[in-house]
Amino acid sequence: MITLYDLAGADPALRFSPYCWRTRFALAHKGMPVDTIPWRFTDTDAIAFSGQGRVPVIRDGGVVVSDSWAIAEYLEEQCPTPALFGGALGRAHARFINSWVDSVMVPGIATLIVRDLLDVVADKDKDYFRSSRESRFGRTLEEVQAGREQRVLAFRASLAPIRLVLRTQPWLGGAAPSYADHIVAGTLMWARCTSKFSVIDPQGSIVPWFERMLDLYGGLGRAARTV
Amino acid sequence: MITLYDLAGADPALRFSPYCWRTRFALAHKGMPVDTIPWRFTDTDAIAFSGQGRVPVIRDGGVVVSDSWAIAEYLEEQCPTPALFGGALGRAHARFINSWVDSVMVPGIATLIVRDLLDVVADKDKDYFRSSRESRFGRTLEEVQAGREQRVLAFRASLAPIRLVLRTQPWLGGAAPSYADHIVAGTLMWARCTSKFSVIDPQGSIVPWFERMLDLYGGLGRAARTV
Repeated sequence: MITLYDLAGADPALRFSPYCWRTRFALAHKGMPVDTIPWRFTDTDAIAFSGQGRVPVIRDGGVVVSDSWAIAEYLEEQCPTPALFGGALGRAHARFINSWVDSVMVPGIATLIVRDLLDVVADKDKDYFRSSRESRFGRTLEEVQAGREQRVLAFRASLAPIRLVLRTQPWLGGAAPSYADHIVAGTLMWARCTSKFSVIDPQGSIVPWFERMLDLYGGLGRAARTV
Repeated sequence: MITLYDLAGADPALRFSPYCWRTRFALAHKGMPVDTIPWRFTDTDAIAFSGQGRVPVIRDGGVVVSDSWAIAEYLEEQCPTPALFGGALGRAHARFINSWVDSVMVPGIATLIVRDLLDVVADKDKDYFRSSRESRFGRTLEEVQAGREQRVLAFRASLAPIRLVLRTQPWLGGAAPSYADHIVAGTLMWARCTSKFSVIDPQGSIVPWFERMLDLYGGLGRAARTV
């Protein structure tokens, strides 16, 4: 049984890391059972064995892997089917999608929900969360999140590549979901679980795909605790 | 021998379509010889046999294929190695990259060089080019291109996913070039061939990769006519 250190809020059932969600979906895709351990930002000692301080971290017998991308590569190597990448080129191309999500979706969503995140993190994490994020943005969390009703329109426009792909295929992975779907959907789970604010257009063409993602793997995403 | 209808300028040796360049690179990748026929925007009769009015169009014996994506799929099917996609997932993931380029890079570069393009298109194409593009933008070509020295900074920032990928692998295709490289490099060839304005940061990390792309396939990109 694989163990996953999984970012949790004050409510231990609230799991909201966009990177841990990629790993959750990837594990479910492989049909690999997982034991998740709720982890908070300040629990650095608990994952010191991984040699770094961020989740996801998995332990598989004697093997420890950190970083969502490295974990996906590890899972594909251990268990090639059903495929996450489907070969070297599928993996290389998925890396572009991962980079796009990390440079467009993650910072975009952060500016829309970062103050909401403060409300869900564990009490012991709140000081760390506020100071680390305010230092990163150079503004208060309240200032960063202000005006999101207007700003969300530009964020939604930036998701055009997803809409364009979904016109030609049902999943980012083509005929079936792949790790590309996990990257994007895992990132959307971050907002879904922590905020009532809709980062994607409720009437837009990404919704039907995300709804199907929520239903996959026995409704893993659908069943997730939300605020 | 495959025949390619290839967008040309007043100078028939100037080939500048971002979509035809994807096809040129893909054909060279496969080692398939090609006979290119210079084509202008108003030569719709010349490709009427394809059932539509845009290039690239290829004719391979009795088979006609139009649209750069469909052509890449056709080439991969006819000749699986060296791979453009490397399987169904590689192809599905490349489709995302194609969508990103078409929704971010192509419109971004258009606003930086569209007035320069008018100078290189064939005389008989100039009226069509100006009126179709001005209608699309709702402004004159001169107005669209104005202020590019400032605006290019935002465009360059939008290429972050490419820079991020190239930190971890030498090509967008991973250890070797794939159609993902052709999509991005083909689009950059559009600007390289038609404008002296540098759309990418001359000191940035995309340049070394693009220089290697120019040298591939016997220096196909390097040897291309530029203004």
